[in-house]
Amino acid sequence: MYGENLKLSVFGESHGAAIGMTMEGVPAGLPVEEARLQQFLNRRAPGQNAWSTPRREEDRPEFLSGVLDGHTTGAPLTAVIYNHNTRSRDYEALRFTPRPGHADYTAFVKYGGFADAAGGGHFSGRLTAPLCVAGGLCKLWLEERGIRVAAHLQSIGGIADDAFDPLHPEIDRVSPDFPVLSPEKGEKMRERIAKVHAEGDSVGGVVECAVTGLPAGLGGPGCEGMESRIASLAFAIPAVKGVSFGAGFAAADRRGSENNDAFAVEGGRVVTVTNHCGGILGGITNAMPLLMHLAVKPTPSIARPQQSVDLRTMQPCPLEITGRHDPCIAPRAVPVAEAVAAIAVFDTLLGTK
Amino acid sequence: MYGENLKLSVFGESHGAAIGMTMEGVPAGLPVEEARLQQFLNRRAPGQNAWSTPRREEDRPEFLSGVLDGHTTGAPLTAVIYNHNTRSRDYEALRFTPRPGHADYTAFVKYGGFADAAGGGHFSGRLTAPLCVAGGLCKLWLEERGIRVAAHLQSIGGIADDAFDPLHPEIDRVSPDFPVLSPEKGEKMRERIAKVHAEGDSVGGVVECAVTGLPAGLGGPGCEGMESRIASLAFAIPAVKGVSFGAGFAAADRRGSENNDAFAVEGGRVVTVTNHCGGILGGITNAMPLLMHLAVKPTPSIARPQQSVDLRTMQPCPLEITGRHDPCIAPRAVPVAEAVAAIAVFDTLLGTK
Amino acid sequence: MYGENLKLSVFGESHGAAIGMTMEGVPAGLPVEEARLQQFLNRRAPGQNAWSTPRREEDRPEFLSGVLDGHTTGAPLTAVIYNHNTRSRDYEALRFTPRPGHADYTAFVKYGGFADAAGGGHFSGRLTAPLCVAGGLCKLWLEERGIRVAAHLQSIGGIADDAFDPLHPEIDRVSPDFPVLSPEKGEKMRERIAKVHAEGDSVGGVVECAVTGLPAGLGGPGCEGMESRIASLAFAIPAVKGVSFGAGFAAADRRGSENNDAFAVEGGRVVTVTNHCGGILGGITNAMPLLMHLAVKPTPSIARPQQSVDLRTMQPCPLEITGRHDPCIAPRAVPVAEAVAAIAVFDTLLGTK
Amino acid sequence: MYGENLKLSVFGESHGAAIGMTMEGVPAGLPVEEARLQQFLNRRAPGQNAWSTPRREEDRPEFLSGVLDGHTTGAPLTAVIYNHNTRSRDYEALRFTPRPGHADYTAFVKYGGFADAAGGGHFSGRLTAPLCVAGGLCKLWLEERGIRVAAHLQSIGGIADDAFDPLHPEIDRVSPDFPVLSPEKGEKMRERIAKVHAEGDSVGGVVECAVTGLPAGLGGPGCEGMESRIASLAFAIPAVKGVSFGAGFAAADRRGSENNDAFAVEGGRVVTVTNHCGGILGGITNAMPLLMHLAVKPTPSIARPQQSVDLRTMQPCPLEITGRHDPCIAPRAVPVAEAVAAIAVFDTLLGTK
Repeated sequence: MYGENLKLSVFGESHGAAIGMTMEGVPAGLPVEEARLQQFLNRRAPGQNAWSTPRREEDRPEFLSGVLDGHTTGAPLTAVIYNHNTRSRDYEALRFTPRPGHADYTAFVKYGGFADAAGGGHFSGRLTAPLCVAGGLCKLWLEERGIRVAAHLQSIGGIADDAFDPLHPEIDRVSPDFPVLSPEKGEKMRERIAKVHAEGDSVGGVVECAVTGLPAGLGGPGCEGMESRIASLAFAIPAVKGVSFGAGFAAADRRGSENNDAFAVEGGRVVTVTNHCGGILGGITNAMPLLMHLAVKPTPSIARPQQSVDLRTMQPCPLEITGRHDPCIAPRAVPVAEAVAAIAVFDTLLGTK
Repeated sequence: MYGENLKLSVFGESHGAAIGMTMEGVPAGLPVEEARLQQFLNRRAPGQNAWSTPRREEDRPEFLSGVLDGHTTGAPLTAVIYNHNTRSRDYEALRFTPRPGHADYTAFVKYGGFADAAGGGHFSGRLTAPLCVAGGLCKLWLEERGIRVAAHLQSIGGIADDAFDPLHPEIDRVSPDFPVLSPEKGEKMRERIAKVHAEGDSVGGVVECAVTGLPAGLGGPGCEGMESRIASLAFAIPAVKGVSFGAGFAAADRRGSENNDAFAVEGGRVVTVTNHCGGILGGITNAMPLLMHLAVKPTPSIARPQQSVDLRTMQPCPLEITGRHDPCIAPRAVPVAEAVAAIAVFDTLLGTK
Repeated sequence: MYGENLKLSVFGESHGAAIGMTMEGVPAGLPVEEARLQQFLNRRAPGQNAWSTPRREEDRPEFLSGVLDGHTTGAPLTAVIYNHNTRSRDYEALRFTPRPGHADYTAFVKYGGFADAAGGGHFSGRLTAPLCVAGGLCKLWLEERGIRVAAHLQSIGGIADDAFDPLHPEIDRVSPDFPVLSPEKGEKMRERIAKVHAEGDSVGGVVECAVTGLPAGLGGPGCEGMESRIASLAFAIPAVKGVSFGAGFAAADRRGSENNDAFAVEGGRVVTVTNHCGGILGGITNAMPLLMHLAVKPTPSIARPQQSVDLRTMQPCPLEITGRHDPCIAPRAVPVAEAVAAIAVFDTLLGTK
Repeated sequence: MYGENLKLSVFGESHGAAIGMTMEGVPAGLPVEEARLQQFLNRRAPGQNAWSTPRREEDRPEFLSGVLDGHTTGAPLTAVIYNHNTRSRDYEALRFTPRPGHADYTAFVKYGGFADAAGGGHFSGRLTAPLCVAGGLCKLWLEERGIRVAAHLQSIGGIADDAFDPLHPEIDRVSPDFPVLSPEKGEKMRERIAKVHAEGDSVGGVVECAVTGLPAGLGGPGCEGMESRIASLAFAIPAVKGVSFGAGFAAADRRGSENNDAFAVEGGRVVTVTNHCGGILGGITNAMPLLMHLAVKPTPSIARPQQSVDLRTMQPCPLEITGRHDPCIAPRAVPVAEAVAAIAVFDTLLGTK
């Protein structure tokens, strides 16, 4: 449940009947361009590439409420994606031997064994699909107002892409195929992913996300700040373990004279000469590009044998996870990062006159 | 405004009549030990050390509501700290020449010149004092339940303290004088701070915070996750530009086989053999120590000349900030980090049966 | 969007693809007895009686999320009811000639013509079906804890049923067929409904609802009070124009010596000798039966010609509503009143240790 | 804690250090006219009339935050009223013998004896003073936009004042001295109050409140409806046991053909020919006057002996309440009703573009 002006609720379990989301507070009359939304969703979908899980189905949302004749009606907007994979009994075995790095154990403690363990249940990365339905719509609605949201892979397993220019992020340079700025670096990343995959392992990455065209004055003090609003949703993405804005952790090593962004006037508008603050001062946008980094941990599901515990007997229990899994989820986290930023920004914008 | 079960509201402006906070939802009958709370608040107070702004006043909270005979009454708990510094006319000059790195410009855009610009107004770091009143109380209430919250300076300007042992954070090793684990590293940090101060500059730092004694099962999926709950409040601290949990951004460079925390049984309880996840899986605590890092940017107020803009004439305008300022606010951010963690954990605990 | 501990969201439009609801915060492991739930839903369903609209379809919820093997999983619980009536073009004519007493005009103003006007869209009484799915579940979960929720028709068009005994509401006396305590009064009510129906008119009614078995101490001051929590949801039922507790408006004509409920001890428990307060003092339950009245206005859709305005030409425009409509919706509001009370009580209970 | 766009929090206990409120979300630059606000607060203040408790002190708010140079700053607005009556030990005796009709018993159950019982603590009617500070400000801000809020005593102990004309409420006819439309009826009410007072008793009343000048389109479906929003706050007023809109409970006895408000065009605007709906259709304003009734129960504190229970011994215990008490609080509830309506409307307006 997220939002101040939008109220977003995501539901579903990875192997249940359907996953979906409801957004309340969407103004009436906004366009719902299903084809463009689908393009966005396909960027998150599995199975499109060698390094990703095999394609099972297209994530095609059906709108149950809030959309009529291609426009929002002002009623709560509900979209569902039906699951075609039936609930597998394979998961039964996993029920009492939690997978390291997953929510299996903590969900077991919290829900007392009633949780739908199949495929991670409500904790599955699959739940980012309805998040992307919401975020994809917000992203399109922001574009109508001249606000663009774009992300790329900043690094994978230590191999770094070029960074966005903090003053003029090269959004159009991001490759539609593999989301990097530098094709060479992208090639190296793919090789790295293939290598760890061959070794039955996985690897993490960092996503950089930019929002351009923002007005100054969005956000506020305390938890109304843009960093708080975005981070609270970004940490809802499974596997995200760090969120930073602007120079982020690098700012901690700097001096004030290096880190402060001097003000100047450009084309009659106040700008900053550098953008170490990532477009946010005191929680409020300053009309410079908003810049965020997300740290994505390596996929916890790996082919190598791991050590778990049988929760019934409380005895150590070796674990081997079968099936195919993404050796690196960071590429698929790129559109999710955009979705999160778009939702947070659109929510804030709705509350601003 | 923060919280699901507690509802915390912080008010005040740095040079207004008072700053304070209201917490709703506090159960009746909890002890309010003012002396222990004051000890905690003094750790945040300015002016206690050479490297900090000169001491002006003790931040002594007065309880207007919700406390009777040393215990909470169940009514909203309101505490105020009266300001003794009168509103200075010195700030008038600053009103239209925003300080780089501060919220002056963005607050001007948002509030149209009505904001109380004096000393940063509602955006002042001084507002972390009422946050510490709330957090200090929560910290004491958590201690009663065997949950401890402690932070230290992980680094300042690139000089690193020892890190907490992720399995057994050495909370009692943190020096009461200067919050580090290694006195030698602390000495070097202080020298660095003195040096940048002498050069009219400032420096940033990283704070590491640990919470021990947590039960498993706190938090939940999506924005109910502990990372979302803590980060949303941590980013409300002025100057925080990054938040991470467990291995954080380092996890992005690792392989799954390195980053996953294997499960084991110890003393009849499920534990993890390592703690790269920082005690949180799927947004839910696993009863291992919760570990968080906060990146604190260098104090934006520096003595060196900076470049600003006169918002009336829209002409470039050099700026010199007079008065004394902390050359490094990271040491004072240490108790604030504890406050934030304590509030988020106590709030979550209240909603858990 | 309702609730502090539960978060309930109702979506759908009367002639859209589906209507439904999501409840977050439901504990794991609660039983979902679909047959008993269906029995409850059938009480609200149209078309079961002469005085109601002809039966089109059974409102049978499908659970998309949050239920597995007959129990809640702890994940958000989403249920949908698919609409089998396709969107009728008949409504097109009504689009610009708002029906008196309906939300047509105000929705037109708010949503600028984008609202789904068919059958009242998101404002349709049909949206009380998902409310009853949520409320029916809460009612069953409350029964497990010994808390019963029951309502009856207090009056229709001025014909009064017996009132509940405020100290011992005769819940089991409510007829399963037509929800009254006195079969004779019920018969008169049905005659009255048939008469106004024959005259092309409609009639309103009052619903009385009781909750028994409540513990003392639920609720709180201000908007945390049980009256505020229940009323806020009760006024979300279309056609409800008044809500009162205990003696309600009659208390305004009384003296304190008449209206105060003296305390006594009964079976070792504190009780009140009378129950004019309806089980709530200072917004908090006192363990006596909670009693509430809802005023339900006459169905606005009547066969008689009415006066409207053509919103395109801004000219007066006579209006005749065709099709069959409930001449009295109060009988169907009886289970909805129970649903509302059950949701508010269960939500409050979840936040109480 | 109330509000969607405003966030209002009221704190304090009747005999604590201070009572007060914080409003977040108030736009910057709104005037804070303290003299006009004080005039409004004085209407609620005790002791101004024969039938009210003797005047002890003027309720004069001090603004701690959010106001500078007579305007709001955009920061949270906090105002406190210091209590001059020290905590009386007289209340100690009452601590375990709850007063009938008060929250003493239920607060005891909820807060386990830690509640500040003095004078009703946080449940005291005195807490309506900070509510009136918030509401008085909202009322003045609404007046700037041409929206007027006014209430009068509709009845006391069965003696009825004239009702507002639902199409053109005679706001200016309300007497500033005793809030009625008809001076004759007002005189009779005062006689009735004096009589019950002389008899050691108290009496209840009904307040009618009107809001004029509203735009159409405020509110929404479900709990976003104006009735839900207003009722949730109105039931937070101690002693309110019923809330209705437009024809309210009378609508339940009517036919649709009587109760529906036909549409017409007047001065180029859509109007209704009658106003039985009280200006709200489907939870959304239709630009006709918003009309609400509140049922106020008789003051529970009466001089006559009453029956209570000693909570320590669980034995019956006679109770005599000494001191002076309002024999009728309905007159003082009139400005509180206005405050509540003003807060709810202003909150809704802030969220509407």
